[in-house]
Amino acid sequence: MPNWKNIEGHIGTPEGFCGSALSAGIKKKKDELDLALIYCEAVEATAAGMFTTNRVAAAPVELSRQNLKLSRGKARVVVVNAGNANACTGSEGMRTARAAARSAAALLGVAPREVLVASTGVIGVPLNADLITKKLPALAANLTAANAAAVARAILTTDTFPKTCVLQTTLRGKKVTLAGIAKGAGMIHPRMATMLSFITTDLAIAAPDLQKLLRGAVNDSFNRISVDGDTSTNDTVIAMASGLSGIKAPPGSPEAAHFLRGLSELCQALARMIVRDGEGAKKLVALEVHGVRTQADADRIARAIANSPLVKTAIAGSDPNWGRILVAAGYSGAKFDPGRAEIHVNGLALCRRGLDAGFSEAAAKKELDRSQITIRLDLGQGRGSARMWMCDLTHGYITINASYRT
Amino acid sequence: MPNWKNIEGHIGTPEGFCGSALSAGIKKKKDELDLALIYCEAVEATAAGMFTTNRVAAAPVELSRQNLKLSRGKARVVVVNAGNANACTGSEGMRTARAAARSAAALLGVAPREVLVASTGVIGVPLNADLITKKLPALAANLTAANAAAVARAILTTDTFPKTCVLQTTLRGKKVTLAGIAKGAGMIHPRMATMLSFITTDLAIAAPDLQKLLRGAVNDSFNRISVDGDTSTNDTVIAMASGLSGIKAPPGSPEAAHFLRGLSELCQALARMIVRDGEGAKKLVALEVHGVRTQADADRIARAIANSPLVKTAIAGSDPNWGRILVAAGYSGAKFDPGRAEIHVNGLALCRRGLDAGFSEAAAKKELDRSQITIRLDLGQGRGSARMWMCDLTHGYITINASYRT
Repeated sequence: MPNWKNIEGHIGTPEGFCGSALSAGIKKKKDELDLALIYCEAVEATAAGMFTTNRVAAAPVELSRQNLKLSRGKARVVVVNAGNANACTGSEGMRTARAAARSAAALLGVAPREVLVASTGVIGVPLNADLITKKLPALAANLTAANAAAVARAILTTDTFPKTCVLQTTLRGKKVTLAGIAKGAGMIHPRMATMLSFITTDLAIAAPDLQKLLRGAVNDSFNRISVDGDTSTNDTVIAMASGLSGIKAPPGSPEAAHFLRGLSELCQALARMIVRDGEGAKKLVALEVHGVRTQADADRIARAIANSPLVKTAIAGSDPNWGRILVAAGYSGAKFDPGRAEIHVNGLALCRRGLDAGFSEAAAKKELDRSQITIRLDLGQGRGSARMWMCDLTHGYITINASYRT
Repeated sequence: MPNWKNIEGHIGTPEGFCGSALSAGIKKKKDELDLALIYCEAVEATAAGMFTTNRVAAAPVELSRQNLKLSRGKARVVVVNAGNANACTGSEGMRTARAAARSAAALLGVAPREVLVASTGVIGVPLNADLITKKLPALAANLTAANAAAVARAILTTDTFPKTCVLQTTLRGKKVTLAGIAKGAGMIHPRMATMLSFITTDLAIAAPDLQKLLRGAVNDSFNRISVDGDTSTNDTVIAMASGLSGIKAPPGSPEAAHFLRGLSELCQALARMIVRDGEGAKKLVALEVHGVRTQADADRIARAIANSPLVKTAIAGSDPNWGRILVAAGYSGAKFDPGRAEIHVNGLALCRRGLDAGFSEAAAKKELDRSQITIRLDLGQGRGSARMWMCDLTHGYITINASYRT
């Protein structure tokens, strides 16, 4: 099988997709893009979705879940807005989400159940349906493949840069393209959080297969990142496949396996961008946990470390406080003997056999000053391993979140 | 039964106890008190202890656990130091803890198993036993009831004020006194964290009964606070009862019930002081969760909210972002219908039936600007309720923790 290669592009790059974005006045800041459409033009796309596990799910999440079920995994359109999450908005919020879907469906001549809806932004503030429905005609009129590039900017909130990844491969002489965008900066949690991601591909793949592969890719990417340990009402990952490359990926085929590799690579690239853009974050940390008795315990340990405010602040201050890493592992609920633990930062040993490794403070600080850091904890007690991506916790996070709403 | 009354005093106030403190050069800052003794002078005290649940437990925790077992709940002495946690220090750390206990035992003519040891401070740095053993003779020479007042200061690390509470009651014409001190500011977690607390009383109570009552009081106090969500290696709560008041509290007696009320009040007062002194914290928040289907779910919800960085930063910024409270409840794992939730801050409704209550921003800000805040979440779906104490998350926390070690 050939590799997937990074190419320039956007979610309009795979065959069959177009999009557009404009400013609808939903964000506080004037003239910022905040409303967008993604459209599979010529054909019905197969579609899959992963949504928040939070019991308090936003109206657009509820509606998209329902529509994916009603349409049995077919979709033509995504309507997405930023600036207001349409969460904790009750039945009125549901009416707004439905009005957006109905209006887009009428404009594009598709069934309302083929429209998926996503929102991100402030919680508990009513979202005026008119803001969306009045702008949908202009959005529909501007749908082109090239205009889809702007969607990545329209979905941002506290993000400081748009997040896009496009991968391409050649299968049986034909090009297959896979494109994704994401937004997310705070409230990012292993269980997906205030993050949205939209993925398009021109592979031909049945909806149940796409759903299965998407679940696997999300579990190894968006569910392995931590910015602040909170989980949101609006998390949504939607994948749509047009099939227009002409290449099919039936279950169990080499093509399906190849697609999963690409999808995982794409989701991990987007997940890392989210962490790198963590609110106030200056550093991207890849955390690797090895040598744990069981896989489940490795996972527990990695999550406890990645969510620890003390570990995150120590990284912010380039303080080689390896004890905090071991301590977080200690309260994870996993069983282990701390006396065999080894901790490395970018290959520099901080802890050996559970004790200070006698490292040079200057050398440790130099490694921790880097913007990309790998922390490796090896317990030497088994074959379980896990990986997470996290960021540092800085003054910037406090500044952003102390007055997000007001 | 009479009430317990707050009186001026310290852990030397209950009959039979004395103490002393001095600077042993363990803390970085010169001449700061960092080593202390608590001593039950005339008699063997009954003793009980609650310790960290962290798998990475410090040497003094291990030794105190062992000694309480060996002595079957008797103790004469506590040796405590601040500035170095003697955690992640391996077998050398255990030798240091044992040397401290042995040395104190020899000086005071008691059995080594009757000496309990506690440490707090930086993790992973060897603690030189000589620093302690060389100073123990001076400490022993200065043991008086009045000098026990200084112990509350000697156990502090990032704390900004000493934490003491003394309660007194009259039972059958005799005075019974209960005194406690605590330290803790960061790494404070529902499962007890870098916190130490020492409690003395002149009640006569058997060790197993004291242990049982202490467990209950700790679960309703130190296990219900959250500063940053981390849990430490060194958490220790030790209670010692001299019996010298002459009042006995056999199991099931009204005296035992009365003592438990006092002990809970004492532990809660100390727990609130710890939260109020949370690293960088400006506000003390009492969180009350009501109307939950089950007690266990109420507990889950209260813990999720109290540990949420987004809730804590919103409180820091006096931002009435009630959606974050509901969202944290939503990811707690508890089942509930968000459409019936009500949220009040100091009696002001922010959310009704899961929706914005239409409150005045100015009024909400005024309540959130106070240094003591009560947040009440009522789900209206059952009789389960839970309470937690938490603080806000500020720039100060980041500043303190980004370079704690260096």
